[in-house]
Amino acid sequence: MPGVLSNLRVVEVSAYVAAPLGGMTLAQLGADLIQISPKSGRIDYNRWPQTDDGKSLYWAGLNKAKRSIRIDLARPEGQELAAALIAGKEGDGGGILMTNLPSRGWMSYEALKQRRDDLIMLKLTGNYDGSAAVDYTVNCASGFPMVTGDGTQPINHAIPVWDIATGLYLATGTLAAVQHRLATGKGQEVSIALSDVMLATVGNLGYIAEVQMTGRQRPAIGNHLYGGFGRDFATKDGRAVMVAAFSDRQWQSLLRATGTEERMPHVAAAMGVDLADEAGRYAARDAIAAVLAPWFAARTLADIRQAFEGSGVLWGPFQDFRQLVAEDVRCSTANPLFREAEQPGIGTYLTPHIPLSFGAAPHGNIVPAPALGQHSEAVLADVLGLSSGEIGRLFDSGLVVGPDRE
Amino acid sequence: MPGVLSNLRVVEVSAYVAAPLGGMTLAQLGADLIQISPKSGRIDYNRWPQTDDGKSLYWAGLNKAKRSIRIDLARPEGQELAAALIAGKEGDGGGILMTNLPSRGWMSYEALKQRRDDLIMLKLTGNYDGSAAVDYTVNCASGFPMVTGDGTQPINHAIPVWDIATGLYLATGTLAAVQHRLATGKGQEVSIALSDVMLATVGNLGYIAEVQMTGRQRPAIGNHLYGGFGRDFATKDGRAVMVAAFSDRQWQSLLRATGTEERMPHVAAAMGVDLADEAGRYAARDAIAAVLAPWFAARTLADIRQAFEGSGVLWGPFQDFRQLVAEDVRCSTANPLFREAEQPGIGTYLTPHIPLSFGAAPHGNIVPAPALGQHSEAVLADVLGLSSGEIGRLFDSGLVVGPDRE
Repeated sequence: MPGVLSNLRVVEVSAYVAAPLGGMTLAQLGADLIQISPKSGRIDYNRWPQTDDGKSLYWAGLNKAKRSIRIDLARPEGQELAAALIAGKEGDGGGILMTNLPSRGWMSYEALKQRRDDLIMLKLTGNYDGSAAVDYTVNCASGFPMVTGDGTQPINHAIPVWDIATGLYLATGTLAAVQHRLATGKGQEVSIALSDVMLATVGNLGYIAEVQMTGRQRPAIGNHLYGGFGRDFATKDGRAVMVAAFSDRQWQSLLRATGTEERMPHVAAAMGVDLADEAGRYAARDAIAAVLAPWFAARTLADIRQAFEGSGVLWGPFQDFRQLVAEDVRCSTANPLFREAEQPGIGTYLTPHIPLSFGAAPHGNIVPAPALGQHSEAVLADVLGLSSGEIGRLFDSGLVVGPDRE
Repeated sequence: MPGVLSNLRVVEVSAYVAAPLGGMTLAQLGADLIQISPKSGRIDYNRWPQTDDGKSLYWAGLNKAKRSIRIDLARPEGQELAAALIAGKEGDGGGILMTNLPSRGWMSYEALKQRRDDLIMLKLTGNYDGSAAVDYTVNCASGFPMVTGDGTQPINHAIPVWDIATGLYLATGTLAAVQHRLATGKGQEVSIALSDVMLATVGNLGYIAEVQMTGRQRPAIGNHLYGGFGRDFATKDGRAVMVAAFSDRQWQSLLRATGTEERMPHVAAAMGVDLADEAGRYAARDAIAAVLAPWFAARTLADIRQAFEGSGVLWGPFQDFRQLVAEDVRCSTANPLFREAEQPGIGTYLTPHIPLSFGAAPHGNIVPAPALGQHSEAVLADVLGLSSGEIGRLFDSGLVVGPDRE
């Protein structure tokens, strides 16, 4: 697999979003990412969204560029084989495990380290004490659903934010541990908890400190930007746009493009604030919006697009998923991020690369998600150097299986 | 700075969330992260949330563990000095720039590469064509605000999701490029666009493919889980909890803990679905919730916590930021993620480490965000080897400034 990473092999034993995304990120960077799935099947293999005939588009999306082997992990010989694959051979760029499944017994760091002293193990749990949690049960605790929308009721995000951030921390953590191993020869266990990613993020954004230092907390302010001017406006043709102004330049551009430069000093006077200051614009946000709203209401999305073209206004249209695919040129092969790629068994659709573009390793073809067990044979030969006879015996005994026949 | 990364120096020229988070992530891993700020000040230095006297808790949260130098970047000599800091000396672990500011002229990859052939430059733009975008104007286009809440109006998330994911991609991309440089001796430019992170994520989760392959799109379903059973329930004491069941085990645990095992077969019969199947539970979600709701409504949050303790039910309370800080043991120094740490000029509050825990490099003290210019002198001496006389002349000429006197 071409990519900026070479000589890196990671074994993933995972389910759902975070660990699969962490593994896929490394695979998209060029690592040989081997996903071991249990012979009995994966718990996340059918998750929605699905095709009309029940194939998971979600699973296909989060497992691109990986190799798949299916092993009977319920049998000790299967566990032995999986452990051997994880360990590889000292110095071979492998010996790296990423998992969000309970890592006891054969899959514990201690047991695997017996096989390879410089083993690196990335271990994801729900909470720091090892107890279970998922994005939904972490998000509700984060404070954000209480300030999403108008605050009359908690509103969950529709994006698995904490899973996504955790997956990317896992990728970062793997590369940091690999760098440490290159420098020192030493492996290590690297732990992360889904709820710690939430907690660190709430802290990094200042919301824990805000409570502790001021006694206040961020209010629910609908689609407004907190501490500046930004919000949604309805258009003449039933659409909506988001407008934001952080810098003075962006603010002045917005007033110029909407012809409201002469009115805003009156807003400032009426509200008793300085609109050159972000805090002043936040305090006067409803009055500012009242002045701007008729401009948007009198124009279609196309009119607004034309008026804002080259104006320096920071804005964007609200779009549903269909509109995103149908109308947004960024969501097309005009954007080097995308290729029309075939996912075997599903069909050909617009598929993203990793959103990092490396000068030294330009995007190649999209490598689709594997069929479960598609690389069972190849992985045993490549990693463990097994002969075709030995591999045949593993298949005959049912310890390893290949892809299902359609 | 202790940490798993050693001998890595990254210069950050940045504003807002994504690039500062990317830089902080590397700093928290042990890199020497030098943030160059313009003498005239930073555009993000006062962003909300703030203390009562206007200090930015947001800026303090996103710039921990960095060193700060202030340079007059408007003067060619200042640009020359910044370029020299970015380049460092061949082989010294530096020569890495992370920026989300326009990188023209002296700060272009081409210009900096003239100074150091193996330069690595991480360049963040709004859109792939270089045009501007921020989290708010990217998120509105993502499709998610249209399926957040009940779908009657677009609802923005309150978490800067795309900024956070982009920051973590930047950290991953830096480490991948460093690894490539270690292996090949070659540097490179690594580009990423904020809207590409959104697009790749929408694609990875299957929502682009869902539109293209089925013509359908994910509907707005309030706080329900898409394609399974999960939602919020109101409690007797005016709180709310989130409950989710992915696996059969989690589903059975929920029925057992709420005493609804005997009723659910009637729900299945009434709705004509198989509740052993996630799709069946999704189809019958309102009927399931109608059976479960009275159980929650008859109990306080404390009752529910007690009933679910050790039950295997996947659940969590909704909390606002104050409740998170006051009530959640995970948000306290009982959790190794946190320390009570002093941020000079603001005070002492609960501050998170990076949510990755490395066996070979345990968390040390929290290093707070620097005062702007706090390390101006040290950085010039460390990186460029300037004498105190040379440094004095740079301060005298106003090209470099130290921290403001309080």
